[in-house]
Amino acid sequence: MSTVHAYGFSSPTSPCRPLDIDRRDPGPHDVLFDIAYCGICHSDIHTARSEWSQATYPLVVGHEITGIVREVGSEVTDFKPGDKVGVGCMVDSCGHCRYCQQGLEQFCDQAVFTYGQIGRDGRMTQGGYSQAIVVSDHFVFHIPEVIPLDQCAPLLCAGITTYSPLKRWVEPGMQVAVIGLGGLGHVGVQIAAAMGAEVSVISHTRSKEADGLAFGAKHYYATTEPGTFEHLAGQFDVILSTVSSTEDYTSYINCLTKTGAVINVGMPATPIELKLRALSPRKTLQGSLIGGCAETAEMLQFCADHNVRPRIELIDGDQITQAYDQVVHSAVRYRYVIDADSLGAR
Amino acid sequence: MSTVHAYGFSSPTSPCRPLDIDRRDPGPHDVLFDIAYCGICHSDIHTARSEWSQATYPLVVGHEITGIVREVGSEVTDFKPGDKVGVGCMVDSCGHCRYCQQGLEQFCDQAVFTYGQIGRDGRMTQGGYSQAIVVSDHFVFHIPEVIPLDQCAPLLCAGITTYSPLKRWVEPGMQVAVIGLGGLGHVGVQIAAAMGAEVSVISHTRSKEADGLAFGAKHYYATTEPGTFEHLAGQFDVILSTVSSTEDYTSYINCLTKTGAVINVGMPATPIELKLRALSPRKTLQGSLIGGCAETAEMLQFCADHNVRPRIELIDGDQITQAYDQVVHSAVRYRYVIDADSLGAR
Repeated sequence: MSTVHAYGFSSPTSPCRPLDIDRRDPGPHDVLFDIAYCGICHSDIHTARSEWSQATYPLVVGHEITGIVREVGSEVTDFKPGDKVGVGCMVDSCGHCRYCQQGLEQFCDQAVFTYGQIGRDGRMTQGGYSQAIVVSDHFVFHIPEVIPLDQCAPLLCAGITTYSPLKRWVEPGMQVAVIGLGGLGHVGVQIAAAMGAEVSVISHTRSKEADGLAFGAKHYYATTEPGTFEHLAGQFDVILSTVSSTEDYTSYINCLTKTGAVINVGMPATPIELKLRALSPRKTLQGSLIGGCAETAEMLQFCADHNVRPRIELIDGDQITQAYDQVVHSAVRYRYVIDADSLGAR
Repeated sequence: MSTVHAYGFSSPTSPCRPLDIDRRDPGPHDVLFDIAYCGICHSDIHTARSEWSQATYPLVVGHEITGIVREVGSEVTDFKPGDKVGVGCMVDSCGHCRYCQQGLEQFCDQAVFTYGQIGRDGRMTQGGYSQAIVVSDHFVFHIPEVIPLDQCAPLLCAGITTYSPLKRWVEPGMQVAVIGLGGLGHVGVQIAAAMGAEVSVISHTRSKEADGLAFGAKHYYATTEPGTFEHLAGQFDVILSTVSSTEDYTSYINCLTKTGAVINVGMPATPIELKLRALSPRKTLQGSLIGGCAETAEMLQFCADHNVRPRIELIDGDQITQAYDQVVHSAVRYRYVIDADSLGAR
């Protein structure tokens, strides 16, 4: 057991403050690594504030983690001290169920997420707003040399969350729309463009239009402009919705081709009203949740090969609370990443 | 031009009465065939009564048509007089758009449905409650010898409507549920079982349980029994909904595995309330509409090979109005088929 400096929460309404957490000693299959950077995902905020369900405190969140290996267990063959590595939303699963067997560890009933869940050691998992972490080697990823560790951090959640559905649905030449140009959307646009799609951004306003085009979009549409949905009727093979607002989904479905798909990774909390006949003749509405381990490794290599890079703003630990407000107000351009060096100050 | 005896409608509220319609002379690519049987689909009723949109009268409906070829055009090579043939919901499409090129003629913007649409000859198409029909050869199907023409008729709509989505989604050993045991459902159960799935029927009550098991279902569930949805949580890889009522869709989605799909062919008219988060982690809600020409031919051979047979009740033309009432009240077991011999009486 070792004690590690971190930033975390003592209640749903507390600011993010310095605290210390314990990390287990590395077992035979564990990798202990020094965290260099950790991205701030909107999920961190929902969880820290008990907005999705009641969290257990004290709580350290963060699941977009990169760093340098310090020590590996006796059975670990794929990693060695000094390797650049990353960890995303998961740190464990059963390894033998139908989902694990298919490389879909994220759907395993015993999957352990990176923070706020009881791990196999019986202790609550604590996330990446900390200076070191110990993770089973199956859930640790090599970081390609060409991606800087700070820019890479958001790929561990925002990258795989958008890559996985785009990989399932996008073929070169397709018309793809990304709804929302935030932490997820700005990576999704880059990935879809790299897959050979003609990409459109659909946003409330045109305030981020220049950025959207720079990320690889060919077109930019604002839903607050009259006639946008009429103009886009029947246009898109794939629509990736990264927003959590529950707008009129039937309008988006009407923007699909007859065999198109809307993939939702935004997880709205309130129910939507949907005209099922809008799914005729063969339209699809699908959920998606991160990706499996093999697919995450594949995504990292894809981003390395195609120059997909999150646009980040580096912050220190004492700026986390303020950064949360910016994320909630959609004022981040486009992902805050915590410099873990700053977490040790006491 | 030739005159053909038929049964049709003069207004949304009229009974189905004898009338005569004109059929064009067969062109080079046309097949003229004497209709032997035509099934009654619930869509016929919605259309005849202008329930989906305002119909043009007089109107002859019917798109589950089988018969014997009388004459073929000079360029027709695949059919000859005496052949047993069928026609389903479509009689034409453009032949060169992205959908036609993929064998998805039903999604062609210029697809012409079997009744109530303007055909390429500029006249309104009239359906199969008649004694003969002229159809472009691409939309005519050979009927496998082992399937009697009367039992085969419903396969041209109910068969392909259920086969197409099941073909896309079902693999042997999967858990498949069919919601509703009516004209579509009783064929869907047989097809899913023939594909090697373990099939469940989900119905309001157990009134059709013995039939459902006879059609190949292993399990039968009644939604009016307390605890049914709780018992079925997470059970099904695929749910095929054949009903048009807008029940609580989120309950059905909760019955899916984490990567399962609900396919809707029931086309409810009123909006549903849907919790999008119920589609997490990777559940799918999809529409489906009949199938293309190649897939329809494939479906007929599949039904021939696997002994899939609609259970029908033969009726005469003067029983159509009464049969409609039975269909609307879900009292048909399981498909009315009109004997076209009876349509000539005047």
